[in-house]
Order: sequence, then structure tokens, then C-alpha cells
Amino acid sequence: MPELIEVEDAADPRLADYVRLRDVELRKSLEAERGLFIAEGEKVIRRAVTTGYPVRSVLTTRRWLPGLADVLGGARVYLVPEDVMAGIAGFAVHRGALASMARRELPDLKTLLTEPPGTARGTAGFDAAGAGPRRVLVLEDLVDHGNVGAIFRCAAALGVEAVVLSPRCADPLYRRSVKVSMGAVFAVPYARMYDWHHGLAELRDLGFRTLALTPAPAATPIDEVALGPRVALLLGSEGDGLSSRWLREADEAVRIPMSPQAMSLGVDSLNVVAAAAIACHGLMRGAPAGR
Amino acid sequence: MPELIEVEDAADPRLADYVRLRDVELRKSLEAERGLFIAEGEKVIRRAVTTGYPVRSVLTTRRWLPGLADVLGGARVYLVPEDVMAGIAGFAVHRGALASMARRELPDLKTLLTEPPGTARGTAGFDAAGAGPRRVLVLEDLVDHGNVGAIFRCAAALGVEAVVLSPRCADPLYRRSVKVSMGAVFAVPYARMYDWHHGLAELRDLGFRTLALTPAPAATPIDEVALGPRVALLLGSEGDGLSSRWLREADEAVRIPMSPQAMSLGVDSLNVVAAAAIACHGLMRGAPAGR
Repeated sequence: MPELIEVEDAADPRLADYVRLRDVELRKSLEAERGLFIAEGEKVIRRAVTTGYPVRSVLTTRRWLPGLADVLGGARVYLVPEDVMAGIAGFAVHRGALASMARRELPDLKTLLTEPPGTARGTAGFDAAGAGPRRVLVLEDLVDHGNVGAIFRCAAALGVEAVVLSPRCADPLYRRSVKVSMGAVFAVPYARMYDWHHGLAELRDLGFRTLALTPAPAATPIDEVALGPRVALLLGSEGDGLSSRWLREADEAVRIPMSPQAMSLGVDSLNVVAAAAIACHGLMRGAPAGR
Repeated sequence: MPELIEVEDAADPRLADYVRLRDVELRKSLEAERGLFIAEGEKVIRRAVTTGYPVRSVLTTRRWLPGLADVLGGARVYLVPEDVMAGIAGFAVHRGALASMARRELPDLKTLLTEPPGTARGTAGFDAAGAGPRRVLVLEDLVDHGNVGAIFRCAAALGVEAVVLSPRCADPLYRRSVKVSMGAVFAVPYARMYDWHHGLAELRDLGFRTLALTPAPAATPIDEVALGPRVALLLGSEGDGLSSRWLREADEAVRIPMSPQAMSLGVDSLNVVAAAAIACHGLMRGAPAGR
């Protein structure tokens, strides 16, 4: 049974995990210091719990509690009046429930990429017969939380088994990433690369063929590239694309074929999520798990 | 030379085209009554002008005027102090320039789908040798302006030659659609379908094979479907997907192959933009213009 605690005052210090959810800078430091992240709405909270993240507490109202109670175990639940909820969070909360979840230690790059998919972070559901993931995305300096979340959703849906984040890439457990991903950030194992300079060399040492996604016309069309047993697809930032270092170091440059008319229409690129979706779809070709 | 008019007062009635840009309901009625839409930032304004939309007026500051002046012809330009700009629009304006552009009459469905691409709305850049577009998207009740804009960007980049909107679909010329599309809404001709009930029959009468995109496992994978010379791909709304009527009436149901593990990960679908991107890419197969 959850432990129910009525709170009337938005300034109550027990609610400090939940303050000012739209204040990105505040939240980054608060969440890092406390080792927490926020899950929003019944569906996302449920997925966070079932993938094994511990619940620190839940903030909700009498109205939304019944839909959640079965998944909360003995968690502490702060019940507030409807009008207090928005005062704490700083906006109207989606479907009236927030959970403060404890982060877990991320695997290092080698553990992520050499242990059977799923074991690195205890995620269930993968076929554990292989010796590590075979299709991986590497995100270089994607700074938009929504884009990171959307790409995790694509990865989960299209069979990418792990994601590697460059040092400056946005946090997949930030509230907006989690929400846009529909919970896929809990399902796809990921790690952060701490050494950007030697990151691609490490991927290669672990047996991955690295493919750099670029709009360059000379690159190989994504549906024609030789994939091999282990492939890491490198995706660059929203504005500038991949760094010249990574473009130079990658085993092969790949592109998404654009319409011959696109350039004359003044539309010479896809947004990074659309590009990631097409590229993940392209990687499914010849993936051992089949289609 | 643009006609420069200094305005100091945010309440000046000459600025009425620009008020409260974040008030969706106000903007919908205001823009419909006045037959205008708003383009934001130099790049988007430039694209709107070069694709032939008439400028009603421009709202900017001394700082941002020089980057725009060459494209404005004799347009009326309201110059306001930096701090007044946000007061009118209701937020900090992206790159300091807004243009109120006159809408043009949309082609009817038959004109859009039978005249050589580009002639229906005077857009340059298409190969006009064919007798009408061969790859078309049909959006059923997509209500999110950002999604509509992002899908137009995919369409332009990936060679879809026209877009048909169902009666309840969001406006491609709404400020957010325009912005997310990076101006692709000006480049890809579109029309609105006024008769949802008989819409697919009309498409078929015009020679289009209609493909309904659905997550249903029994549907044909998008990369394996027979395309034919003229294809209309039907995309459903963000939440519910296509209506059962359209699913039933379409010539064939198509799907994007998902990872066998996706369902057990709790991620059983792609967002509509990612799905549209993969589907548009799939339609490029065998498109007459080649890749």
C-alpha cells in the first residue's frame, strides 16, 4: 500500500523534488545533485517502475491516484489539491501525476556494448542470445531534449539495441525527453561517452563499423551501405551536423537520398528526428533478429 | 525601397495583424478574417516572398532591418523599439522580424492533382514534364501545427509532390507550422479536401492508388508494396491513426516494419513525423524522377 500524505502548502519542503519543472537550469542542477528524474503521467510512471527505477515519491491529487495505486508498492505519495499542483510544478501537469524516480548508475561504454542487450541495465524483453548489441546509435551533441526523446522512441520501435551519448548530449531522463520518448528512454539501454576524442576508436575496438550520417551527396545511400554484424550509426547535432573529426574518423559516410528537386525548393535537409527514423529503418536490413 | 514607419506604441492599430501570436484561437479567427499568415525570421520571410506570397507589412526593429531590406520591395515596414516587439507578439520574437503575408486561394483537389506539379500554385523548381504529381501525402485530421510543418519538410526533402489535407487538418500556414517546416509549406503545393466522405473516391477517380499507413501487423511492409505511377499515402492523426472508414476504403494497408522486441519494450508505435519520414522515403522507390 502506498503511504498517503496530504500536503496543502506548495512551499512544503517535502515537495522540493518537484519545484519549477520548466526552469531547465534549475532542474539540471537539482536533478544531478539529488540523483533523480521526473516521470509525468500514469503511463510513463508505470513504465519507469516496471523497468526497475526506484520511486522516491509521487505527487498527485485524489482524482488521479486510483489509476496509479497498483504500481506504486509502498511508495510515499503526496496528495495535494488540484490547484496546488500547478503552483508547485509551474504549469498544468499532464494527467495529474508526477513521480520523482531515482536514477541508476549508467553502464560504461564497454559494458553497454559487449554484454547481451538488456543485461547492462536489467531491461527485459531482448533476446539475450547475442554477445552484445548489434545496432547502435551514437548521438553527438544533440542538445534538444525533445529530439533525444523522439530518437529513443525511434530506436526502440525500429530495433536499435543501444544508444551512446556524446559528452555534451542532452539528458534522456530530463522530463521532456522522457515524455516525448513515451518511456522508450527506460527501455533502450544507453551510456555516456566521456572521451569524445577517442570515442570512435573505442567503438571500433569493440567491433563496430561506424557510419556517419551526413547530407553530403558523395556519401553512400543508407539503403545501399554494407552493414556487417555490428553497426554504430553516428547522428550529429540539430544545427551543424556531425563534427568534422567524427566525419573524418568514421568508417563510411552515409546519406538519406533526397529528392532532386529539394534543393531548388529551398529545403535541403531533414530534421534530425526524421533523418534518424529513416536511418534506423535502413539499419533493420539484415539485422539478425529479422523482420 | 520599403516604406519605413516608426511606431512606438504596442497598441497602435496598424500593428493589429501581429497581436498575441501565441493565442491560437484568436489567431485562427483573425488570420482567416483578414486572409493573412505570419512568417517569422529573415529566412522564412525570404522564402515566403520568393515563392510569391504578397507582403502586407513587416514588423521589425532597426537591428534586423538590413538583413531583410533587399527582399521587401516597396512593402510597408513598421519599425518598433526592441522592447515593444515582444509586447505586441506576446513572446520574444525569433530573430527579430515578422511579416504579415497575404494568403492565396488554394487550388481545388482536382487542379492540385492533375496539373503539372508547381503550376497549381506557381511554385518553381519542379520538372513540369508530367501531367500532375505522382507521389502525394493525404493528412487525415492531424491537429498539431508542428507535426503538419514537419511533415511538409519531409515531403519537400523526399520528393512528395503535393499534400492533401482533410477538412479538420491543421493549417500549414499557421506560424508554428511554417516555422517547423523551414518554409517547406510554401514549396509543396497543397489543397484542402472539403468532402471527407467521398475524398478517397475522388483520389481514385484521379488515378491514385491509395495506401493507408497503419501499425496493423497484417499490412504490407512499406518497402514491399507495389507503388504504380500515382500513389497517395494516407497518414492518420497523432492519437488514433486513420479513421476506420479510410482504412476500409484504401486500396491497400501498408506498415513500417517494427522491431520484434518493440512491443515487449512497451513502445509499439512511431510518432507520426517519424512514420511519415520513413513512409516518404519508401515512396521514393521507383519514383519517375529517380534518386
